[in-house]
Amino acid sequence: MSNPYGHFEDPNREYVITRPDTPLPWLNFLGQDEYFALNTNTGGGYSFYKDARLRRLTRYRYNEMPYDNNGRYLFIKDGDTVWNPGWKPVKTELDSYECRHGLGYSRITSSKNGLEASVLIFVPPEENLEIWQTTLTNNSDAPKTFKLFSFVEFCLYDAQNDSTNFQRTYSIGEVEIEKNAIFHKTEYRERRDHYTMFASTRDIDGYDTSRDDFVGVHNGIHEPKAVLAGQPNNTQAFGWNPIGSHYHEITLQPGESTKHSYILAYVTVSGEKYIAPHVINKEPANAILDKYSDESAVDEAFAKLNGLWDDQLSTFQVETPCPIMNRMGNAWNQAQCMATFNLSRSASLFESGIGRGMGYRDSNQDLLGFVHMVPDKARQRILDISATQMSSGLCFHQYQPLTKKGNDEIGGGFMDDHLWLILSTTAYIRETGDVGILDEKVGYADVEEKTATLLDHLELSIRYTLENRGPHNLPLIGHADWNDCLNLNCFSTEPNESFQTASHNTAEEVAESLMIAGLFLKACLDLQGLYKFIGADAKAEETAAAHAEMLEAVETQGWDGDWYLRAFDTYKEPIGSHKNEEGKIYIESQGWLVMGGAGADNGRAEKTLDAVHEHLYTEDGCVLQQPPYQTYHLHLGEVSSYPPGYKENAGIFCHNNPWIHLALMQLGNGDRAYEYYLSVCPAAKEDKIETYRGEPYMYSQMIAGKDAATPGEAKNAGLTGTAAWTFLTISQGFAGIKPDYEGLQIDPCVPTAWPELKVTRKFRGKTFNITVQNPEGKSKGIKSLTVNGQAVEGDTIPLSSAAEENEVVAVIG
Amino acid sequence: MSNPYGHFEDPNREYVITRPDTPLPWLNFLGQDEYFALNTNTGGGYSFYKDARLRRLTRYRYNEMPYDNNGRYLFIKDGDTVWNPGWKPVKTELDSYECRHGLGYSRITSSKNGLEASVLIFVPPEENLEIWQTTLTNNSDAPKTFKLFSFVEFCLYDAQNDSTNFQRTYSIGEVEIEKNAIFHKTEYRERRDHYTMFASTRDIDGYDTSRDDFVGVHNGIHEPKAVLAGQPNNTQAFGWNPIGSHYHEITLQPGESTKHSYILAYVTVSGEKYIAPHVINKEPANAILDKYSDESAVDEAFAKLNGLWDDQLSTFQVETPCPIMNRMGNAWNQAQCMATFNLSRSASLFESGIGRGMGYRDSNQDLLGFVHMVPDKARQRILDISATQMSSGLCFHQYQPLTKKGNDEIGGGFMDDHLWLILSTTAYIRETGDVGILDEKVGYADVEEKTATLLDHLELSIRYTLENRGPHNLPLIGHADWNDCLNLNCFSTEPNESFQTASHNTAEEVAESLMIAGLFLKACLDLQGLYKFIGADAKAEETAAAHAEMLEAVETQGWDGDWYLRAFDTYKEPIGSHKNEEGKIYIESQGWLVMGGAGADNGRAEKTLDAVHEHLYTEDGCVLQQPPYQTYHLHLGEVSSYPPGYKENAGIFCHNNPWIHLALMQLGNGDRAYEYYLSVCPAAKEDKIETYRGEPYMYSQMIAGKDAATPGEAKNAGLTGTAAWTFLTISQGFAGIKPDYEGLQIDPCVPTAWPELKVTRKFRGKTFNITVQNPEGKSKGIKSLTVNGQAVEGDTIPLSSAAEENEVVAVIG
Repeated sequence: MSNPYGHFEDPNREYVITRPDTPLPWLNFLGQDEYFALNTNTGGGYSFYKDARLRRLTRYRYNEMPYDNNGRYLFIKDGDTVWNPGWKPVKTELDSYECRHGLGYSRITSSKNGLEASVLIFVPPEENLEIWQTTLTNNSDAPKTFKLFSFVEFCLYDAQNDSTNFQRTYSIGEVEIEKNAIFHKTEYRERRDHYTMFASTRDIDGYDTSRDDFVGVHNGIHEPKAVLAGQPNNTQAFGWNPIGSHYHEITLQPGESTKHSYILAYVTVSGEKYIAPHVINKEPANAILDKYSDESAVDEAFAKLNGLWDDQLSTFQVETPCPIMNRMGNAWNQAQCMATFNLSRSASLFESGIGRGMGYRDSNQDLLGFVHMVPDKARQRILDISATQMSSGLCFHQYQPLTKKGNDEIGGGFMDDHLWLILSTTAYIRETGDVGILDEKVGYADVEEKTATLLDHLELSIRYTLENRGPHNLPLIGHADWNDCLNLNCFSTEPNESFQTASHNTAEEVAESLMIAGLFLKACLDLQGLYKFIGADAKAEETAAAHAEMLEAVETQGWDGDWYLRAFDTYKEPIGSHKNEEGKIYIESQGWLVMGGAGADNGRAEKTLDAVHEHLYTEDGCVLQQPPYQTYHLHLGEVSSYPPGYKENAGIFCHNNPWIHLALMQLGNGDRAYEYYLSVCPAAKEDKIETYRGEPYMYSQMIAGKDAATPGEAKNAGLTGTAAWTFLTISQGFAGIKPDYEGLQIDPCVPTAWPELKVTRKFRGKTFNITVQNPEGKSKGIKSLTVNGQAVEGDTIPLSSAAEENEVVAVIG
Repeated sequence: MSNPYGHFEDPNREYVITRPDTPLPWLNFLGQDEYFALNTNTGGGYSFYKDARLRRLTRYRYNEMPYDNNGRYLFIKDGDTVWNPGWKPVKTELDSYECRHGLGYSRITSSKNGLEASVLIFVPPEENLEIWQTTLTNNSDAPKTFKLFSFVEFCLYDAQNDSTNFQRTYSIGEVEIEKNAIFHKTEYRERRDHYTMFASTRDIDGYDTSRDDFVGVHNGIHEPKAVLAGQPNNTQAFGWNPIGSHYHEITLQPGESTKHSYILAYVTVSGEKYIAPHVINKEPANAILDKYSDESAVDEAFAKLNGLWDDQLSTFQVETPCPIMNRMGNAWNQAQCMATFNLSRSASLFESGIGRGMGYRDSNQDLLGFVHMVPDKARQRILDISATQMSSGLCFHQYQPLTKKGNDEIGGGFMDDHLWLILSTTAYIRETGDVGILDEKVGYADVEEKTATLLDHLELSIRYTLENRGPHNLPLIGHADWNDCLNLNCFSTEPNESFQTASHNTAEEVAESLMIAGLFLKACLDLQGLYKFIGADAKAEETAAAHAEMLEAVETQGWDGDWYLRAFDTYKEPIGSHKNEEGKIYIESQGWLVMGGAGADNGRAEKTLDAVHEHLYTEDGCVLQQPPYQTYHLHLGEVSSYPPGYKENAGIFCHNNPWIHLALMQLGNGDRAYEYYLSVCPAAKEDKIETYRGEPYMYSQMIAGKDAATPGEAKNAGLTGTAAWTFLTISQGFAGIKPDYEGLQIDPCVPTAWPELKVTRKFRGKTFNITVQNPEGKSKGIKSLTVNGQAVEGDTIPLSSAAEENEVVAVIG
């Protein structure tokens, strides 16, 4: 059974949705600089500048009925028929409908009664605006005169205040209308230096800015009064709810087509705020309008966007025997890495933009899947993140993207946070060779003078974990580790309390984490490599010793017989042990310990991954633990708060699945890694889309596990660490292309049935066209490597001898 | 022109809405103990237990399109016609519609195609539940078979989390269905000891609990899939969005009627949480169902509610020549006082339940209009509030109703807060004589041991103001005084910053408030009276001296020539002075200084009220100041952030209008006070309801002022201090019935045209039937007072000589 809702169109890097009534709204992320737009296949979503909480430009109501019920809408009134190109909100049955989600754009094309409307929505690179280029074509035999209304509902910038503080917000809304542009200037009179412009490039025949007049007090957005009446009211909003709506009367001859654009822009004023009392300075806004006064400028901007994506993706392109892996690895997975890098966990259809900002842990991981695309942005991000570490070694768990200031709003005291910085920094330096970043003075969040360098941060991070160990010589877990929900010190009994911000009720915080131990091991390996590269041999040895010491603790204290433990609780008892009745085996420690080098020479690595296969693997992915907790366990916290099979309570938490993929491939098990990869891959879910529900082109945070009431159902597509890690599964695992300090390592691990794969990789300004051959049907191990016809020793292409363009052949055997 | 949307029906204390499409949704507040329900004339709204943020039972989406688009809905499918008794959400045109908002209940009765549906919604006294008693009558000539679906959408208790944290909330929803009851038990598995029951007293023919199945992913609540299909899906929700919907198939013969009820209950489990794995203990829920198994029990509960209101209102009933004043004073104003006392500023159509909890300042004032109705609750409230004062004298500005713990979420450092406690406590003791409350040990919020008594709090409050005065010997304003928006120390430039929680950027906090000075004067007068009553003569004298000292500062420093100043800013310059270009005259200081005794013997009281009349009075009420600020003033803060004519920037902020009414009546100007009273009275707005828009039966916080773009438009009806203060205008001002420590003072001030008014007042267990005669057409001054035929000296009826039932005649002259 194929997917009745749509299909991939790989040459265009588009997902083509052919029915608007998808199992859930299917989202696209637009924008990659400072202006972002969420856009669904029916035109739903909202826009913001930098920060979805503090600079939200348009309103969206989460979890509405229908789910996705506000957005960028065009209403067409053609005779008595009112319809939207995106179907919603009016939901008039269309004669044809198609939504093409591409990289950084969506194009919705529909027709009704002989009129075709095609709307291309995109954010031009490096601009703080979005464009809806609208093409209308009369495909009927007779002339057509119809009415066209645009619609956005303005958000008063601070989304939290906008949705709670009506006793203020209903009295502050202000707009100006000038020619074809509507200016939303609420709070510009006081402390804002910015406003929103919503303009049409075609001369308008009317407008509305008062929601009560355009939509009506008692009307839904599916039945806006002005549209039903067929005429705008030319209103100016005073307070209540300002909207923007342009009105056009359009006549088209048979076969005639017309094109114009709407521009929604975040405009900052740096000079005089007003040119006359209550009249705002529109100079920067007018510059935008001038630029886009001709549709060819819109076409150019769109071409520039596509060129940008060509360029960004060209760093890594792969051709394997698996079309699913190719389409994900070459386009959609990388696009999702871009989205997670930019938005962390802040704004999607599941992240409300006022819940979570940029995560410390998240952002370091997201960078791993992004650093090859735009290394300069990754560099700045590393510096931003590290500046939210405190001098103790602990980190602010999140920061607000607009202010870059860390805060405790979603909790603190997570004892894994600091270690991720080592992974992101070493990945960046391996990609770029830029060791200069280590000397950047970023300081600590709690120390005014910025004397500490980035390298100081890395060293402090290692030291913090070494100095904060528990009774088994393993790292203390603090509030939690990567698994936010394993709260071994909280003992929370108060339902008003967030598990994330709950205070600790343990006398002595002795609980320890094997997952942090594994992460520490991996961080030591990475740091050791860096030290060697910069010639700090003593430091490298010190780090190797720290690795050995932790490994010793892991192997003597952390082995349960068939797998590694997950943690020790406050009573010093094991978690994730055959001794437990529930939660006997967890996934995280298995992946991380193997990646960190545990079990390498005692058979435990294979054994623990076999245990994962036996106890955790399902056809929808590996569940987080087994068996699920049936009741709440005070000493475990949030992990036991979820119904069995969901989220951390034995759901398939996709983010940790690639850790197993990478561990399997480290051991050379390409066949199993491939099976596992497909199990969580959305593009492989098209034949059970009614169960899966989520977007086929974006990884989900979670798929309901086998113990759930709804197994196989995906949730929270888009903003998940799954993107970065699964991109590593593809690029560094299967394809085996690993940037290293002095060259490009070629270390593929493929399914035995794959005869060949090809990769193009740009690295430090050079291009490598790599063919991996697998004549013997093995999975791993490079038998020979030739570069431009020359044999190379080992599996790494030294940069020193590489040309601008390199033909590489690597043979597995 | 009368009001086309409805009318008062005074004998029933009902407001009868005859068209559903009111200018805005018109709200009724249900519940007065621990369970509360907001209910509009179309059935919109939501329910909660104690705390609209932390224990919200059903979902509501503020500011939706349409505005009021979730609630307690019944869907009737009769043939192909689907309709709701409340019109919304389907909005099928009805053959008849009526909504009767009564005190503590609403009854919506509609008919379509010969079928009549009448739904009575109320919260029985002292129970944690609401009942929708539903009567269906076939008024047609033929038998009718139709389908009936109920609907609520459950909120997952913490309303803030429920509307922001979907990555968690979409995975935790859980329900159980047993017989005719749907149990919403999300998070009961972990830290909750409560669940929500939604049950029908009539055996059901089906149900739904999954929103996606009942409503549909792409459907609005105006087109629920199951209703359109004419059959439920009998679904159990797992995660996503749990709802409750019962399904009935009903056949009625011509003329036949049937009655059943829906019960929505907050159920607390004190014993075992589960009776079997995953099966909740339903014992307390079943006790409710047993109780209401017969409709006569519902009828009894409703009769009990009406009896309760009869009783509560009987303490004060007035009969003046003004029907508008009578209907407000005898029913609606008192009901609004009840709502504000219970909900402070937390939950209405303008207060989202997650913005503001119980205010310190607010609650003390709300109590003034409520203390006569249920003095015991007022007593507890005084103790709760005072416990959020800190040992410095400053107070937490709000506290959460569920926890009663103070917090800084909406700011702190308001230097008027503490003084209001004196007004509320003395009002309570004058009403009840209960001086014992003064010895209650309530402690301070920041001191663990509870040794401070309530009297200590009052004394600390006076001391705090005395010890925190500025360069003009006037009280420092701190973050702000009653006018939250006059922020003289903030100098806020950061748009992400709430003015309420903004930090202070002044080097030296010297700004002073004349409003606080007036409030202090009044508090001294009240406290002095109390000291005298308890025989603390030395303290009384001390307080009199403090009053005199402050009065001296006011008269020497605070007079501007024609009115009193409002404040001194951080530069020690006057605010509210003829020297200012904008904001020359403010309302608050005029009212409070006169009430505190300023200007009494130097003509300034009259003069300043004349200035109010000249500069601030309009036919829609007195604006807060004049002229409005056209631009933002850094040193003034939020007051200058609003567009001219709105809110504190020269809007008609109704709350402060009665201060002028009371000041005018203190000076004997009954005619002007009456004109002013009507200017802000919603019941006097029926002839311009399209402009006013708000409920005719509830005061609004704000009416747009003369400088606004929409003058006369009301906002934020319901939860405003206007209710308590205007009740004092009526009861203690016009009617002049003032409870005093040792008797009941009769000190009316009436329009000269009123020949007579009658009051029934219950006071300390005795009843006073009072006739005020005005044979000479004067306004104020009691010429003679007779009680049960006996002449009484002065204007106060001594309690000592009063009978159980007293006939009182007071003659003005």
